[in-house]
Amino acid sequence: MSALAAMLGTRHALIQAPMAGTQGPKLAIACSSAGALGSIPAAAVSLETLAAHLAHMQSSALPYNVNFFCHQPTPIDEAQHRAYQAVLAPFYAEFGIDAARIAPASGREPFSEAACALIEQFRPQVVSFHFGLPTDALLARVRATGAQVLSSATTLAEALWLQARGVDAVIAQGNEAGGHRGVFLENWRTAWPKQPGTLALVAQCAHSLRIPVIAAGGISDARSVRAALALGAAGVQVGSAFLLAHEADTSPVHRAALRSSAAHPEEHQTALTNLFTGRPARGIVNRVMREIGPINWAAPEFAQATAAIAPLRSAAEAQSSGDFSPLWCGQNIAGCRETDAASIVSSLIV
Amino acid sequence: MSALAAMLGTRHALIQAPMAGTQGPKLAIACSSAGALGSIPAAAVSLETLAAHLAHMQSSALPYNVNFFCHQPTPIDEAQHRAYQAVLAPFYAEFGIDAARIAPASGREPFSEAACALIEQFRPQVVSFHFGLPTDALLARVRATGAQVLSSATTLAEALWLQARGVDAVIAQGNEAGGHRGVFLENWRTAWPKQPGTLALVAQCAHSLRIPVIAAGGISDARSVRAALALGAAGVQVGSAFLLAHEADTSPVHRAALRSSAAHPEEHQTALTNLFTGRPARGIVNRVMREIGPINWAAPEFAQATAAIAPLRSAAEAQSSGDFSPLWCGQNIAGCRETDAASIVSSLIV
Repeated sequence: MSALAAMLGTRHALIQAPMAGTQGPKLAIACSSAGALGSIPAAAVSLETLAAHLAHMQSSALPYNVNFFCHQPTPIDEAQHRAYQAVLAPFYAEFGIDAARIAPASGREPFSEAACALIEQFRPQVVSFHFGLPTDALLARVRATGAQVLSSATTLAEALWLQARGVDAVIAQGNEAGGHRGVFLENWRTAWPKQPGTLALVAQCAHSLRIPVIAAGGISDARSVRAALALGAAGVQVGSAFLLAHEADTSPVHRAALRSSAAHPEEHQTALTNLFTGRPARGIVNRVMREIGPINWAAPEFAQATAAIAPLRSAAEAQSSGDFSPLWCGQNIAGCRETDAASIVSSLIV
Repeated sequence: MSALAAMLGTRHALIQAPMAGTQGPKLAIACSSAGALGSIPAAAVSLETLAAHLAHMQSSALPYNVNFFCHQPTPIDEAQHRAYQAVLAPFYAEFGIDAARIAPASGREPFSEAACALIEQFRPQVVSFHFGLPTDALLARVRATGAQVLSSATTLAEALWLQARGVDAVIAQGNEAGGHRGVFLENWRTAWPKQPGTLALVAQCAHSLRIPVIAAGGISDARSVRAALALGAAGVQVGSAFLLAHEADTSPVHRAALRSSAAHPEEHQTALTNLFTGRPARGIVNRVMREIGPINWAAPEFAQATAAIAPLRSAAEAQSSGDFSPLWCGQNIAGCRETDAASIVSSLIV
């Protein structure tokens, strides 16, 4: 067993990436049962739901990770919401949606006192953060539970910053990764075109850090795991490969897009987009990304972009269309198969 | 010796990437002498200079590669040239440059009848192309010389397209790579935000192609070479690691930027930019990229952007500033050292 696996409390140095909106305890338990570290994404659920998920995990007596976003929320920007609605106006018209009735909303809540209390109650093996770290006071409380603390870095500078603040390991999130970029040191508006790929980022981090580096982004089969280890990673975090797992809660339109991509990898195209939440995240290119994005400066700050696009997503999904849905996915779908999570974990063990 | 090395006529399955503007026969001979495949970039030199370079290579009796751009030139677009000049106007004013005197120019010439005649005369071991392939007629003439033909793919779709047209091996150019993206199947204006990273692209190509895949992008030391091979690559193409080699012709401002990046890897930031030629190419972020780019839609088509920015580059370089120079470089500068090329080749052998 590697030192990282010992830290994670698992047989394998392999983390199932937390994927807000597409999975919960079912996938996490399946992965932890198979010797990896299952993850519970806290970013898109209420505290009540999170408590229920943690109780579910705790009853399994398996190690697990809970992941929190720790962005700085910004005040609701009504003008920006209306500006984004103006860009979306032709789509509203197409679906007969009355834009005036869609109010701005703040979207997701960051890690908080109340969330921290749940950590103190349930004491997971690992707590991971995205978009930096919470306040020193909250971080100290998390540490006091005995949890191992991880966070994502999208640049070597971010990795060094996290190491200096005492995280136990850094997740080097290469540009290939699906979902939200963890950018936090620089404004994402200037950072996004400079994001290093997994190969470059992992090589740089492994060379410069003294704590373990966990490679993420484009890792979906045994060959890419071997590549990550060759670069100096102590382990890997894998997300997209689990999106078609039986135990994932991936939506029908998302599953359809993933199946199509896996069947026609030469047509599989992803891009970073801010259209769905206000921060850049990687997903399969769909109609709205092609027509107004993938990056559109009219979209409000995180996570206020969601309010304006949500009714379009609902209307399109009601017609089985993913044209307005976030179809999060990394750049390498080689390992994205419709099977049980344990088989996917097995395929990633080298 | 690997099958790819046999094809290249070398001891090692390692190509020194052709880097137009920063190297010529001196670096190529040093690399070929050390058992790699040295390359001669044809894109930025006249046919007379190219002939001299090829004669120089031929006299070494070593295997080598000649690289050509095969873009479709577009007619000179005076209006676009003036539009780009308008964006650059504050910089012209700063340097006291009279913009009206700067005429539009077509920039680089693609592979041609005359260039093909040089291939027929000198018969290099390998001919590689960027931006697709030349016409069938010209390609047949290159093949008839017995040269191995390579070309770059930036997506799996491009790799399959090249394989179908009979290239001997595909260079999988991941997004980490320095210099021009070889994008050719899709317009670069929509393709650039979707470019796959080296890890994802090499994995996909190695899985789907029957011909050898040569990994490029972010590969600059033994660990990244091992990672590329783990992904299924038959060999690697390495550029940036040679930019500080004694035998390279890298300019003083370019060398200064590379030295600074290598000394402070946490501050090393690169981005794709169209400011210098009109097509996206990866370079170290400098003042002009920060202030009007890195991607600016006012820049004319390839390679007409060069005319407007060239006087600023000259004026700044005269003051030892690289603020307006293309500082081509990949995302991983781990192997970028000031030493002889043979030592760099040695460091890449696994």
